[in-house]
Amino acid sequence: MQLKAKYIDMETAEYTCVLHVDDAKEMGVREQDRVRIKHERSAVVTLVHTTDTVVQPGEVGILGRAYVELGPEPDEVIEVVATSRPAAVDFIKKKMAGKELSTSEIRTIVNDIADHSLSNIELTAYVTSLEINGMNIRETADLTSAMVETGEVIKFDRSPVFDFHSIGGCPGNKITLLVVPIVAAAGLLIPKTSSRAISSAAGTADIVEVFANVDLDSNKLRSIAETTGGALAWGGSMNLAPADDVIIRVEYPLGIDPHAQLLASVMSKKKAVGAEFLAIDIPVGEGTKVPTMEKAQAFAKDFVELGELLGMHVEVAITYGDQPVGRAIGPALEAREAIRILEGDPHPSSVIEKAAGMAGIVLEMGGIQGGELRARELLASGKALDKFREIVAAQGGNPDIRSEDIVVGEFTYDVKSKMSGYVNAIKNKQLVRLARAAGAPKDKGAGILLHKKKGNRVGEGEPLFTIYADNRAKLERAIELSRKMDPITVEGMILAKLPYVSKSTVIERSFCPVPSEHQAE
Amino acid sequence: MQLKAKYIDMETAEYTCVLHVDDAKEMGVREQDRVRIKHERSAVVTLVHTTDTVVQPGEVGILGRAYVELGPEPDEVIEVVATSRPAAVDFIKKKMAGKELSTSEIRTIVNDIADHSLSNIELTAYVTSLEINGMNIRETADLTSAMVETGEVIKFDRSPVFDFHSIGGCPGNKITLLVVPIVAAAGLLIPKTSSRAISSAAGTADIVEVFANVDLDSNKLRSIAETTGGALAWGGSMNLAPADDVIIRVEYPLGIDPHAQLLASVMSKKKAVGAEFLAIDIPVGEGTKVPTMEKAQAFAKDFVELGELLGMHVEVAITYGDQPVGRAIGPALEAREAIRILEGDPHPSSVIEKAAGMAGIVLEMGGIQGGELRARELLASGKALDKFREIVAAQGGNPDIRSEDIVVGEFTYDVKSKMSGYVNAIKNKQLVRLARAAGAPKDKGAGILLHKKKGNRVGEGEPLFTIYADNRAKLERAIELSRKMDPITVEGMILAKLPYVSKSTVIERSFCPVPSEHQAE
Repeated sequence: MQLKAKYIDMETAEYTCVLHVDDAKEMGVREQDRVRIKHERSAVVTLVHTTDTVVQPGEVGILGRAYVELGPEPDEVIEVVATSRPAAVDFIKKKMAGKELSTSEIRTIVNDIADHSLSNIELTAYVTSLEINGMNIRETADLTSAMVETGEVIKFDRSPVFDFHSIGGCPGNKITLLVVPIVAAAGLLIPKTSSRAISSAAGTADIVEVFANVDLDSNKLRSIAETTGGALAWGGSMNLAPADDVIIRVEYPLGIDPHAQLLASVMSKKKAVGAEFLAIDIPVGEGTKVPTMEKAQAFAKDFVELGELLGMHVEVAITYGDQPVGRAIGPALEAREAIRILEGDPHPSSVIEKAAGMAGIVLEMGGIQGGELRARELLASGKALDKFREIVAAQGGNPDIRSEDIVVGEFTYDVKSKMSGYVNAIKNKQLVRLARAAGAPKDKGAGILLHKKKGNRVGEGEPLFTIYADNRAKLERAIELSRKMDPITVEGMILAKLPYVSKSTVIERSFCPVPSEHQAE
Repeated sequence: MQLKAKYIDMETAEYTCVLHVDDAKEMGVREQDRVRIKHERSAVVTLVHTTDTVVQPGEVGILGRAYVELGPEPDEVIEVVATSRPAAVDFIKKKMAGKELSTSEIRTIVNDIADHSLSNIELTAYVTSLEINGMNIRETADLTSAMVETGEVIKFDRSPVFDFHSIGGCPGNKITLLVVPIVAAAGLLIPKTSSRAISSAAGTADIVEVFANVDLDSNKLRSIAETTGGALAWGGSMNLAPADDVIIRVEYPLGIDPHAQLLASVMSKKKAVGAEFLAIDIPVGEGTKVPTMEKAQAFAKDFVELGELLGMHVEVAITYGDQPVGRAIGPALEAREAIRILEGDPHPSSVIEKAAGMAGIVLEMGGIQGGELRARELLASGKALDKFREIVAAQGGNPDIRSEDIVVGEFTYDVKSKMSGYVNAIKNKQLVRLARAAGAPKDKGAGILLHKKKGNRVGEGEPLFTIYADNRAKLERAIELSRKMDPITVEGMILAKLPYVSKSTVIERSFCPVPSEHQAE
């Protein structure tokens, strides 16, 4: 059908055009069908939106970048033809029917996702089907490979490449800032890319951004990693496994993260940087992504098997996640805590223990005996700090960075205990909500500093934690929220033994920093 | 946050506002989150869309009717606050997890759907979860009741109310035009509402619209039905079980229709008009909605059980659907075929047999013995024609309507057989595609008239069917499409016995018009 082009100043995630209901009926297309719009030598496929007001019969409204890409003059007559839906939809429906998908079917789905060819409705049908019906390990490996293939792949000048990943969910988990310089100081190549916070108070990229540039392209990542042996980059500025960034568009509003997609998401980013040795941290506990030890073990097994299919050696540590790691939550507070440790501070011991343990796994995969001990030595000798400063400098930060230079929120408020007793429980999710109310992760100085952790004795009126904010209004907002919450439970006596996470059978080690935390802090 | 209102001339299914990325970050909201926008005494909840071009920091773009509903002046400063997602999302996720939903959880989902509170993503998660995990009969009854409660309920001046429904999928199924006047002529009340075509060549509402007004509100429906005993209305102009019309927005693009939703959709529209006795037609065959007898029987059982929970007496007929019902496909062609039968034409016998059989079920539910025979008498005596004309007149049509007044497409083309032999197969879906290419259902005169049906002998060069169109361009389009298709298969000998649909065990009767079709036509 020949229609007059009309620009619509609006942008949506999906390429969209608007047809008058009469024209749509005439063409036999309905809302959410697709049309191909041609102008000279270019063509775009858009979803159809119907209206009886926005455009008149004989007109086609084209939104934002789809219009720009086509480039017609206003009111120029262009051709609009009904077109079929992408092949991926049939395979999504096959997964919906509970069937196993072939390698090529999975590749078609991932291609159509990466091309932005799927609507939100189709993407949602995909993630919901995946959430319910799952994928076996073979399908998950194919999913991972297809995600790698549809994005950029980075090759470094030497091998092997080591990598580390925490699946997250436990607040205060700033250990990447320690693991990377320790591993690089030991002479291994670890070009680490991290994410920003989605629902947490600070992703590693948010923390590093406090003192260095994280927005690196792949060339820059390569040159920094090849020079220093490490990197602390934001993965989002590279085009690694980009299908993932499309899928999150529908996963986030539903608050779901299908198991196979999570596995493929982690592994594809690692595969895209050529990692051959990978250590994975799975925090277990109330309010993390993995609530029970059984689930963590199943998860660990999947990572290891997937690694085998993808030619990657994977070791998993199941870690204690029933309370925050260390005491600081929020970008600047976490940066300060991590740098203090690099500078030699022996506290908080839970952070050191977890970081040295994880770095130790990587070192041992790299053939360095007594990994954890070696990691602690690299910390104690200041070599990790030197390497950290080298990486910071390469990423445009201050080469002499010190913890006291980190600026934390100037507006603070102490939340005090209403009674004497012992800290019985710390609710991760409530602390994250408070930190976010105070402005984290966008306001770098905002966050929470814990003064008491599980098992600690506390007197009436003693501060339990301090809220930090970069401005007064957000501090007030967080204070108000804190009154409706009970993130730290103080009981008149110790009610229970602290959870103790036992060693997993499928993995090499697991950490339990709780006992030492109580002695040292 | 205080922002300047900006009108955006665009309409979407979901209430939508556009925030600058910086403001969204500041408020801690992301794409697909929700905000409440307040202006004076009114407030709307919209989905968030983020941009760095369409609006500037400090502005909020509000789309179409959401802006109109709020009514701010351009650039007026209004309040925008982050708000939580609807309660339904938690229950949708519960169904995603494979759990049974309670009555109140189902009611919450349906309320949020009917209120337009759910985004396409949330709606898709709902229908996909329902497609995969299903609902038991208790849940389906609750779903039906909730759908009835969120819409209009029509009460008639007498009872009982009888109703009839075909779940569709078999082209040419114009029997509602016969069933309603037969039943009404027998003195029973049958206020029938029908749908328009979604993917078929003609819905009953599209056919009736050829000669009468179908766009009736509930008062009009009531007065017509109370006066004439019948009605042939379009359900879409009433507000019966409106949640259904929202859900189709995401079902259609995926081409799915979850079993529980289909059951609830049918039953809620019937319950909303107070039907106590309901006859259901389930066509079985290649290219219909129910491909096998086993599935049809399970379907029938569900309808009967659901009816019991809802206080409705349901009888189901599983009917032959391996080829079109009768010979005409398309609004005007079907109207003409049905009216000819009312006028006394004994052909096509398959239409008469199916219509009399279905009407007979309704009559017997109404206490009239020998239902099918009585239905045939009402046809033969002209009483059904009189009643039909009465209903047509009440709906603003010609009270003396005759079949020869029906105008069919003036542009026609005969598709001829390339060989002599017997018609071995007729592909329902291909015929529907051809009829739609010719302009049906929008072009009333467009469609297909079959000259040969299954088992018929055909000579080389003899016409198999005629394509009708209201204009030459669409006729050409349909002719071209017909060259790529093979909707009627002619074989050199009869290859197989025709399918014979046996009586179901769970239902009262089933029809198999095939044998008589072969004798009579």
